[in-house]
Amino acid sequence: MSGIDSVTIKLGTASYPVIIGAGVLADERVWVSRLNADGVLIVSNSTIAPLYLARLQSVLEKLNIPHQLCILPDGEQYKTLTTWQQIIDALLNMRANRKTTVIALGGGVIGDIAGFAAACYMRGIRVIQVPTTLLAQVDAAVGGKTGVNMPVGKNLVGAFHQPALVVADIDTLSSLPEREFRAGIAEVIKYGLIMDAGFFDWLQNNTDAILTKDAAALHYMVATSVAHKASVVSADAHEQGQRALLNFGHTFGHALETLTNYSKWLHGEAVAIGMLLACAYGEKTGRTAPEVTAKLNQLLGKIQFDISIPEDITAQNMIETMRSDKKASYAGLDLILLESIGAAVISRGHRPELLLKDFPMEYLG
Amino acid sequence: MSGIDSVTIKLGTASYPVIIGAGVLADERVWVSRLNADGVLIVSNSTIAPLYLARLQSVLEKLNIPHQLCILPDGEQYKTLTTWQQIIDALLNMRANRKTTVIALGGGVIGDIAGFAAACYMRGIRVIQVPTTLLAQVDAAVGGKTGVNMPVGKNLVGAFHQPALVVADIDTLSSLPEREFRAGIAEVIKYGLIMDAGFFDWLQNNTDAILTKDAAALHYMVATSVAHKASVVSADAHEQGQRALLNFGHTFGHALETLTNYSKWLHGEAVAIGMLLACAYGEKTGRTAPEVTAKLNQLLGKIQFDISIPEDITAQNMIETMRSDKKASYAGLDLILLESIGAAVISRGHRPELLLKDFPMEYLG
Repeated sequence: MSGIDSVTIKLGTASYPVIIGAGVLADERVWVSRLNADGVLIVSNSTIAPLYLARLQSVLEKLNIPHQLCILPDGEQYKTLTTWQQIIDALLNMRANRKTTVIALGGGVIGDIAGFAAACYMRGIRVIQVPTTLLAQVDAAVGGKTGVNMPVGKNLVGAFHQPALVVADIDTLSSLPEREFRAGIAEVIKYGLIMDAGFFDWLQNNTDAILTKDAAALHYMVATSVAHKASVVSADAHEQGQRALLNFGHTFGHALETLTNYSKWLHGEAVAIGMLLACAYGEKTGRTAPEVTAKLNQLLGKIQFDISIPEDITAQNMIETMRSDKKASYAGLDLILLESIGAAVISRGHRPELLLKDFPMEYLG
Repeated sequence: MSGIDSVTIKLGTASYPVIIGAGVLADERVWVSRLNADGVLIVSNSTIAPLYLARLQSVLEKLNIPHQLCILPDGEQYKTLTTWQQIIDALLNMRANRKTTVIALGGGVIGDIAGFAAACYMRGIRVIQVPTTLLAQVDAAVGGKTGVNMPVGKNLVGAFHQPALVVADIDTLSSLPEREFRAGIAEVIKYGLIMDAGFFDWLQNNTDAILTKDAAALHYMVATSVAHKASVVSADAHEQGQRALLNFGHTFGHALETLTNYSKWLHGEAVAIGMLLACAYGEKTGRTAPEVTAKLNQLLGKIQFDISIPEDITAQNMIETMRSDKKASYAGLDLILLESIGAAVISRGHRPELLLKDFPMEYLG
């Protein structure tokens, strides 16, 4: 369970490895032969750079790779076209060419904007993702989704641009604020729920080790999550089919985030409650086996998720918000539902009136 | 030679047809089954819209497809991120979803910015290219290159985003200014030079029919050019290998454009001179068969290309400019050269001192 793991995202000629382990960020062996001398632009933020930039720089110096820096302010409010253009300008200023590599050192925001800048500069240059949050390691950094937020909605402008390499250093999780770490676990639980009942059991049995950040437990948790994401992305890179299963809990979760202007919950927290609502709705409509919701509720409790929903969020405004989701279509909402723990399905055509009839009101405030 | 031609760009699941013919823009049969009811954004400019927008709108109305308009000012100076964002805003304002289609009605500038907006909106929605210039019909609209210019260079930000359909209406060429039409012929000649000696002969023998815009001649010329572009793009969508052959004449041509701040020549005119320089350099270095330059010179003369170069452009500043081209690398310039008419090769590692030694000075002013 210690050492270095490598999971391959299989996409034909665009395949790439995700390297997982404690200390891999500063491990020369991970980087050698995966960078060329045409230069690197490191994109990071003002919180992460003081913590981990020196480790990355020392590796690049050992390998004689010239690099420039683009350090952005920290926060989702900077995930904008304006910031994206700052990265483009940094590439232009360093006279980056088609062989220049962008290294995104940070959480999901940094990965998304740096990835989108790399996707567009000269119609696409290489990006290496170095995720430093749990959420980014198990989800955002793997799979090639990049983008920025627009005033009317999140990730409305972006590109699919697969990284050339992902380096997930477990050590960086130690600096993660407790609340962000916990929120990241929601996406981990998701993999158990949608495709791996055994992993769900493991999570139930290892909550303490995870919460105390036992290195071996974290390594196993991240590696297993990445392996699951890899299998889904490899089968469906552009989200035309099976990749949609990864959205389990997200349609409900996005509605919660939107209704509270993204001010109450971290993304993972909203997804946790969203998964609970999706399970409960599935049980009510007979699509989901009994007890699934109870088991999830119990696990979320052990991890001390607060699943309470403010009183002003109603089934009506939840459903109205879900209808304007970018995945919605004429024929009603497509939802990801569980048949049982470890088995998710795409369930189509949930019209508003049916959603309202079976909405799990008991979880509302 | 009359009627409708359809050439398929073969890219697996992303394959698409290029429909070529007189009147195809307003032909319902071309459009039916290729548009869905989720709405269309038509992007055009203030020159083209008064001429052809009504034809497109009448087809959409017959097919009951709701549509919105985004009419931009005409000119390459508007091929910017600011204009691109106007298109993104138009999509947001109409609440476009993942099934919305962008239709780009215009020349290369409209196709490039509208295509790039479609590439990025919700990480990629469908774009249909309706090129109305010869250059766009035989080159820009086919192959998926999209992008915008930056103050320091052209097409530095963009994406590969293949259209879902290309509709090349030969009738629209009648409104094209004579100079633009002539410039477009340079890219047509290029296909003859790099891959089809018979087509080069045909062009020599049909100059009059082309210049008088004989419908059958234009149809054959466009369809043959598209077929050649299709075969190259199908083999190499992302320009990793053979697609580079399409850059024949462009490295020299770009240098000419750059040195004159894009103010003296239209792109096609610069490419015509660029091809001549590439042939002459090829002959001087023994890579290109004798007489090729003379034959090209003769054909360009028949089409009344002005191949004179201003006196202040020297071999030295041409070479210096070519070195900063985005395709340049450490090991010297990669050039596309002809072995003979119909046979191009990638010739690597042309160092500045060698380029200078064999530069075809006789074509300079």
